[in-house]
Amino acid sequence: MLRGERRMGELALIESIRLASAARTMGRVRLGIGDDCAILRPPSGHEVLVTTDFCLEGRHFRRDWHTAESAGHRCIARGLSDLAAMGAKPLAAFLSLALPTGTERKWVNGFFRGLRGLADQFAVPLAGGDTAQSPSEHILADIVLVGSVLAGKALRRSGARSGDLLYVTGSLGGSAAELTSLHVGTGSNQGEEHPQNFPAPRLAVGAALLRRGLATACIDVSDGLSSDLKHLCEASGVSVEVELAKVPIHPLAEGRIELALHGGEDYELLFAARPGAAVPRRIAGVAVTQIGTFVERGRTLMVKVDERGRRTRLDAGGWEHRIG
Amino acid sequence: MLRGERRMGELALIESIRLASAARTMGRVRLGIGDDCAILRPPSGHEVLVTTDFCLEGRHFRRDWHTAESAGHRCIARGLSDLAAMGAKPLAAFLSLALPTGTERKWVNGFFRGLRGLADQFAVPLAGGDTAQSPSEHILADIVLVGSVLAGKALRRSGARSGDLLYVTGSLGGSAAELTSLHVGTGSNQGEEHPQNFPAPRLAVGAALLRRGLATACIDVSDGLSSDLKHLCEASGVSVEVELAKVPIHPLAEGRIELALHGGEDYELLFAARPGAAVPRRIAGVAVTQIGTFVERGRTLMVKVDERGRRTRLDAGGWEHRIG
Repeated sequence: MLRGERRMGELALIESIRLASAARTMGRVRLGIGDDCAILRPPSGHEVLVTTDFCLEGRHFRRDWHTAESAGHRCIARGLSDLAAMGAKPLAAFLSLALPTGTERKWVNGFFRGLRGLADQFAVPLAGGDTAQSPSEHILADIVLVGSVLAGKALRRSGARSGDLLYVTGSLGGSAAELTSLHVGTGSNQGEEHPQNFPAPRLAVGAALLRRGLATACIDVSDGLSSDLKHLCEASGVSVEVELAKVPIHPLAEGRIELALHGGEDYELLFAARPGAAVPRRIAGVAVTQIGTFVERGRTLMVKVDERGRRTRLDAGGWEHRIG
Repeated sequence: MLRGERRMGELALIESIRLASAARTMGRVRLGIGDDCAILRPPSGHEVLVTTDFCLEGRHFRRDWHTAESAGHRCIARGLSDLAAMGAKPLAAFLSLALPTGTERKWVNGFFRGLRGLADQFAVPLAGGDTAQSPSEHILADIVLVGSVLAGKALRRSGARSGDLLYVTGSLGGSAAELTSLHVGTGSNQGEEHPQNFPAPRLAVGAALLRRGLATACIDVSDGLSSDLKHLCEASGVSVEVELAKVPIHPLAEGRIELALHGGEDYELLFAARPGAAVPRRIAGVAVTQIGTFVERGRTLMVKVDERGRRTRLDAGGWEHRIG
């Protein structure tokens, strides 16, 4: 299956994955890389959550825009954010990685450093995966995140009711702003300054929402507020009014409400809570802002309300990533 | 993220996956496509097994050699075979699929037909995945199989001991013979006649081995007898002697022992059993043949014994797929 010389051979790649995972296949992972399957032991009484995400060069990252560390970080951030949106605790990650002929070991090491850096923050072992030679010049990755949550307790998209208030964590638009500026960071600074390169999945917030029973519905903002809010509204069968003045805009997107409404990859959480719920202003150190209200479903699903109280339709613009 | 016109849009693709999975998200799958994660409920007291496999055009299949049905069938066969090798029962599959611009809907439908055909045989729901536009002209798939097995009971590679006998299911070399002949089938005939296009994972055999406590170690033959047997020997810390005259050769590979020893993708099971174990000649309708004996580990890991009793080293040749 693998032919020709290349700088990073498959065996070396498997060894990289093995090293990246060796010290971490413990706890809930009974058997990691080295048998036909990995064996996970979820906590008793828990359900198992699974989410998979492509991370394809030319679609989800570019080697000239994103550092290897950023590509690795972002690769695992998407799945962790999906787990966060359901209030789950991660159990293990599985990485399928195909490299083109001649991929530099330095790039691969950087990718693993970025991926592991974020995985380690949440004690997520890399428990397996697959390797191949890429059939094109593109690096191809697909990542699986497996998590668990007490049976029947997972936060869903479908529980919002009319009268519930709409909240968002952190701030929006930063990732899109950073990407459109093309000024990608080259260092390994994480957090606020590099929301595009090093987004921070909100696992602690999701877990707290679940534990405190605060949210009636929850979703993560991966495609953009307008798109993901639409998913939540449709799943719950409600409409929503968003007050534009309340939407927290990331400093990098200052004054650009469109980026906050439609920019993707912010990986914040969007959730609904009953009007009487005691939602704090910060959860797990992250700001929580009320930005709208769910209303009975009419013909219009989403409405934005400007500072003068004028209501116009909010369309799920989605945000066209400018990568691919 | 997705731009330009193409015959199979992402929405249509998601709809295909949804249709393929809708009627099947039941039983152990509490929530399939349509939330941030799928929710699985493994049987009480079970561990969860996870395996992931790339299925990349130009590496694992070719559109001019494999029909769409065959590509879909083979995509899910690999992971099912990994579950079989551990004696596990499949719970759900997750498919990540990236299509190039202009992929014909007919191809996609055929792919799903092939994938679903095999999934349905084992009642495996397609519970989620990801979709994207391929960054190249290649179709890219990555599949995850999740299964379960009673805690602590999974068949492993590591349990073979000196004195154990080596068994293999079915026959070997058929898949490699079919591929090298380039005479790929164009119909949907499955089983013996098309081991390359429509391999049959041995889930019932693996489950029976586990239930009856027959195997001390087990692995599936995906890379070829010599390669996979080496994995089993290394994991168990034993050597092995293979009697060439006993190796069951697939009719398509008649007289070509090299294909049986080194040909890949047969998806048979290779297992060890104590010499006193009552291993039947057929398990779940599949022939079981004793082909060797495990011996104490010396300097040589694997030895082949010819009809005259001459011993020579058996090298893990692996088999270079001629696809990529």
